[in-house]
Amino acid sequence: MTTTNSALQSVIWSSDHIELLDQRLLPEEIVYIPLTTPEDAWEAIRHLKVRGAPAIGITAAYGVVLGSRESNTSVDAWLSDVNKHAEYLATSRPTAVNLFWALDRMKAAADKLAASGDSLEACKEKLLQEAISIQSEDEETNRLIGEHALELFKDGMGVLTHCNAGGLATSKYGTALAPFYLAQEQGMSLRVFADETRPVLQGARLTAFELQQAGVDVTLICDNMAGMVMSKGWIDAVIVGTDRVAANGDVANKIGTYSVAVLAKAHGIPFYVACPMSTIDLNTPTGSDIPIEERPAEEITEGLGKRTAPQGVKVFNPAFDVTPNEYVTAIITEKGIIKPPYNVNLKKLFETL
Amino acid sequence: MTTTNSALQSVIWSSDHIELLDQRLLPEEIVYIPLTTPEDAWEAIRHLKVRGAPAIGITAAYGVVLGSRESNTSVDAWLSDVNKHAEYLATSRPTAVNLFWALDRMKAAADKLAASGDSLEACKEKLLQEAISIQSEDEETNRLIGEHALELFKDGMGVLTHCNAGGLATSKYGTALAPFYLAQEQGMSLRVFADETRPVLQGARLTAFELQQAGVDVTLICDNMAGMVMSKGWIDAVIVGTDRVAANGDVANKIGTYSVAVLAKAHGIPFYVACPMSTIDLNTPTGSDIPIEERPAEEITEGLGKRTAPQGVKVFNPAFDVTPNEYVTAIITEKGIIKPPYNVNLKKLFETL
Repeated sequence: MTTTNSALQSVIWSSDHIELLDQRLLPEEIVYIPLTTPEDAWEAIRHLKVRGAPAIGITAAYGVVLGSRESNTSVDAWLSDVNKHAEYLATSRPTAVNLFWALDRMKAAADKLAASGDSLEACKEKLLQEAISIQSEDEETNRLIGEHALELFKDGMGVLTHCNAGGLATSKYGTALAPFYLAQEQGMSLRVFADETRPVLQGARLTAFELQQAGVDVTLICDNMAGMVMSKGWIDAVIVGTDRVAANGDVANKIGTYSVAVLAKAHGIPFYVACPMSTIDLNTPTGSDIPIEERPAEEITEGLGKRTAPQGVKVFNPAFDVTPNEYVTAIITEKGIIKPPYNVNLKKLFETL
Repeated sequence: MTTTNSALQSVIWSSDHIELLDQRLLPEEIVYIPLTTPEDAWEAIRHLKVRGAPAIGITAAYGVVLGSRESNTSVDAWLSDVNKHAEYLATSRPTAVNLFWALDRMKAAADKLAASGDSLEACKEKLLQEAISIQSEDEETNRLIGEHALELFKDGMGVLTHCNAGGLATSKYGTALAPFYLAQEQGMSLRVFADETRPVLQGARLTAFELQQAGVDVTLICDNMAGMVMSKGWIDAVIVGTDRVAANGDVANKIGTYSVAVLAKAHGIPFYVACPMSTIDLNTPTGSDIPIEERPAEEITEGLGKRTAPQGVKVFNPAFDVTPNEYVTAIITEKGIIKPPYNVNLKKLFETL
């Protein structure tokens, strides 16, 4: 299925399968591919057809539905299938905690359903509803994140973002990009600078694309220009998404985020992280406990249509880095804006839920 | 002419024309193109077939020879041709001062020759010798820069570099890469990390390539990974080249250098700049007086074999940035290592010449 619709949704549940926007082909091609098995979902996550912590979680949740719907013998066998496929899907990528959060939520829902005395068919239907809820709640969550983030911005400000934490990374609005969409709706003007975000160029291909489509004032730069535009006084704030926040407020996000945070601090620019509560992992004490995925060298050496480095050259290609909490001015969630000390304030936030 | 010789020279004077290595095609293709007119030389400089401040200067010097050799009426007419073509070639790129330095040297040599009473043919031959001298002196200069730089390095150190200030950017050895070649000759082991250097990827295509060819231990990273590798403790020093050093020690170099310098300072890592004396411009008081070339958006949006950003997106593409002197630990020249205060010590160095 190919469409030119400009309001792109990255993950669509389409009666009995997932229609997934292949984000690797953007912005040149808008192609939806059908995912009909959990293996399809695993492969789509691993190979970055879908990316963005919330969108990965949503895809994995539907993947569990795809994997367990053929289970026709008993509720117990179905529950076992749910768990098996959830564990399988959890191996697709290691860093984003939303993946594990969504799979845990699906497993917990299935546990409860299996114990409820519902029929097998009812269990299956209600598990699908759980996945749909994960997706629809994400949209509302992002709207709230955007509203809270906007409290920190003023008309005319320049804001830099890295990677893509936008509508394409989530159900709608995005996390870090949500305030730009809401500002646009409210007639408030922000100038966005988007790092292109090597090696996979999510900033160039996705952030610049979706903001341009929405009419937001966006300027594309290479990652290595962030320091220069800050030194020119063009940047009043940085806002990024995250794949996992540790209990102490350390933040794992797309490689390059740490460099941006250090540069922001050196220029006296606030550095904000936007995420749903599901991205905060109190079970991970610090950033050094977050596994950092290393990806194939070819993403750097020949990911761009032609070979751009010598054959056989040694390459280091971490997909993420960790920004220590001391660089994080605030974490913006659907529950409000959290400030340091994070080890106290993050815990407090969960206790009040 | 195509060759697979591994000791690549970027600019070769070949009896009556320049054989120029087209650096845009590296590392995949090793192609020399003949330049027979000053227009060829201008176009090669403007379109980055040759890049690197010293190599640009050398190409421009030969370009003056190409432009004035048809002058057959009088020594005066020849001198006028030399000046005309030198002025024309000076418009090829604005930032690297070696271009203007080499052209000024050619004009001064021609002035002297015109006043010497030599025949027109002798003047032409001696002006060619001047261009050849600029090239051969550059090799010796770089060797000395490398020797001085090595005083700052110890066996086993990790050193990060940005862009390409190597053999391909000069006559031989390079400036910032010279210590790596000399270390290799002396059996000293350094681990080099090369930023790929978007948008034109001189780090990936040229630095990684030439160091790999020489057997130096080099690891390629994306620009946005520099902060992370520093935080891992892998980097003991940064060394880069430069296109112009102002009288106060501010340094213009490839875009992204400033970000690297800020990151180095934040991690307590020394930041060294290597260059010939001809790159230091006492007539430019500070970095803010250095013109910064902006290049076409397409270098970012479609420079890599396919389009990587949406059509029509706004782009900022400065080719260089300025690193303020406070970030520069030392400047390494053929005359030795210069430390702050640069406004005093750079001036002193020229006075002792």
